[in-house]
Amino acid sequence: MNNFNFYSPTEFVFGKGRENECGELVKKYGGTKVLIHYGGKSAIKSGLIDRVRASLDKSGIAYCELGGVQPNPRDTLVYKGIELARKENVDFILAVGGGSVIDSSKAIAIGVPYDGDFWDFYSGKHAEKALPVATVLTIAAAGSEGSGDSVITKEDGMLKRGTGSDVLRPRFSVMNPELTQTLPAYQTACGATDIMAHVFERYFTNTKEVEITDRLCEAVLCTMVKETPRVIADPDNYEARANIMWAGTVAHTNIVGVGREQDWNSHGIEHELSALYDCAHGAGLAVIMPAWMEFVYKHDIMRFCQMAVRVFGCNMDYADPEKTALAGIKAFRRFLHDIGMPINFTELGAKEEDIPVLVEKFGIGDGRTGGFVHLSAQDVAEIYRIAARAAL
Amino acid sequence: MNNFNFYSPTEFVFGKGRENECGELVKKYGGTKVLIHYGGKSAIKSGLIDRVRASLDKSGIAYCELGGVQPNPRDTLVYKGIELARKENVDFILAVGGGSVIDSSKAIAIGVPYDGDFWDFYSGKHAEKALPVATVLTIAAAGSEGSGDSVITKEDGMLKRGTGSDVLRPRFSVMNPELTQTLPAYQTACGATDIMAHVFERYFTNTKEVEITDRLCEAVLCTMVKETPRVIADPDNYEARANIMWAGTVAHTNIVGVGREQDWNSHGIEHELSALYDCAHGAGLAVIMPAWMEFVYKHDIMRFCQMAVRVFGCNMDYADPEKTALAGIKAFRRFLHDIGMPINFTELGAKEEDIPVLVEKFGIGDGRTGGFVHLSAQDVAEIYRIAARAAL
Repeated sequence: MNNFNFYSPTEFVFGKGRENECGELVKKYGGTKVLIHYGGKSAIKSGLIDRVRASLDKSGIAYCELGGVQPNPRDTLVYKGIELARKENVDFILAVGGGSVIDSSKAIAIGVPYDGDFWDFYSGKHAEKALPVATVLTIAAAGSEGSGDSVITKEDGMLKRGTGSDVLRPRFSVMNPELTQTLPAYQTACGATDIMAHVFERYFTNTKEVEITDRLCEAVLCTMVKETPRVIADPDNYEARANIMWAGTVAHTNIVGVGREQDWNSHGIEHELSALYDCAHGAGLAVIMPAWMEFVYKHDIMRFCQMAVRVFGCNMDYADPEKTALAGIKAFRRFLHDIGMPINFTELGAKEEDIPVLVEKFGIGDGRTGGFVHLSAQDVAEIYRIAARAAL
Repeated sequence: MNNFNFYSPTEFVFGKGRENECGELVKKYGGTKVLIHYGGKSAIKSGLIDRVRASLDKSGIAYCELGGVQPNPRDTLVYKGIELARKENVDFILAVGGGSVIDSSKAIAIGVPYDGDFWDFYSGKHAEKALPVATVLTIAAAGSEGSGDSVITKEDGMLKRGTGSDVLRPRFSVMNPELTQTLPAYQTACGATDIMAHVFERYFTNTKEVEITDRLCEAVLCTMVKETPRVIADPDNYEARANIMWAGTVAHTNIVGVGREQDWNSHGIEHELSALYDCAHGAGLAVIMPAWMEFVYKHDIMRFCQMAVRVFGCNMDYADPEKTALAGIKAFRRFLHDIGMPINFTELGAKEEDIPVLVEKFGIGDGRTGGFVHLSAQDVAEIYRIAARAAL
């Protein structure tokens, strides 16, 4: 196990009706003037924004609002948010939505106290200061409610880039699984795929002797394998929604990934898909992740066997472990298909002839990248090709 | 799943040599005058206290010291610590040791800013204010490095009582597994038992639909089942020590126990043993926990089957699940014996004829207690009797 620091100071406020505590929570964490940041109409139509307003009113907290966050949140709206927050003397950002809204809120939070262009932080600069951020989560997926990370897309060129800092960790995150019950099955499945991908990026490691984090990773994965089909079959299943929601947070605070080298190539490879086609991140991951696995599994066949047996319940083929490794990957792709995810370029709406563009945008040139297997641009192209043509 | 709040703001600073960062960490968290609180001579002889002093010196942090914490830490030393901290204008308590030292440090931390008797907080009062506490952990066991809990023994009458508050959560905890390599096998095994007990107290629940926390509990337990015998066989095994140390923290921040009713009767029943005989808490738990399981398993046979199969690798007897449930409990007791733990009163140094005294001190009178099975005083007496006579 490698040395590590683990820090996750967010207060998670979980369960039915907890959004009605927003006002008291903002007060507890020192906010006096809030920017409520959200996405489309669903948060308003569902009455959620009204409940958040009512809770802030009740606690005497002033607020202004900015909606319109899109999936793959854009820098253009972040600039608007920074301007509004400065004009209104906002001292607290409350994200009401999913990963995109939270990431956009974090970007505004770093931008407000910074004299330069907030994009600097998405180009390598480390954030030391930000307005406090909190969240009311409406989809189990990105894990942004418990992380210090944010990913923003620069509209000019659709460049997708991330930043991370402890100052971006939410002060509190309200997590009411009921709020996710109105999500379409497709979005629910995209979120589930994202959660599993967050674990797999950590699970595939070259660090030896990591039993505790291996087991914790598998705990989240087994939960997703059990609970996701239940939610797809019955969107109103609160209990399955609740298990997935907590799994999604545990998957990404890094408690399951500390002390081990991590990979993250699949996320990088996917980012180019969602940037080019504006598809859902989870859907892109469903296409890329099993293809990545097929390309790299020979690097550590026994680790893929462990996944196959412990997560997907495959029988170990002791005479031919490679068969078990491949059975596990196949079971994962089958699982993704069964929950309604695309498994190849056609189903995703991507085009094989764009692969050279995707690889170029990925931008590693003659270098190599990734923590588990160091991939070259040629390797990445091959993974796109496997993904393009994948079948059950 | 039940509604819950989860809050664990401690920064965990894990790995080789990390105690040399104490000075910078105290500074980061605002300390200027530290009380270094520790136990016996081993922390001095090993050079650990010297390294902590050197790190504080290097960062220009002043300090005073108080050693002498015993296992089952006493109120008498807490009073001394409070007096010393006030006299020296201490603004930060640094616990260098295991659960006892940390619990004693937390008691001092609440006592210093409080006008009354600190024991009030161990008699039901809730702490709203405390000096900041941090830890340098030397044994994986109590989980106190990541919790807001503290247990203190009143010397007059050997009354063992606890308190809990978010203000007692350590600001940081330095966790260097190397520091645990010098521990005797017996203490190591006591710590491992305590970690497993923390999980079992959460695992046995009447709350339905808790797949994610079930799986997380099992992740910690599987890790302990694998790694503990390795450490007993080879005390210098850093990797196994590291896995156990992180497992011990995960077991007790409550991340594996949120949203579910918990039991905690075994801890209460054990506390009377360690109070009366001054035995190690983990050793007492090794005697009590399987006896408690034997007394309650019929309440939910399938949950005990799940433990037997998933944690101890038993085969499921689908024709007679009760056999599997009992096989799991038997496997747990065998495991405890194999790592050198006592499994009955004789091996622990307790006496069956003291049972009426133990039950009376447990003090539930005509009431009932516990989250999984509500036990009467008579039930508790029966558990002591099973524990007294247990065999492999």
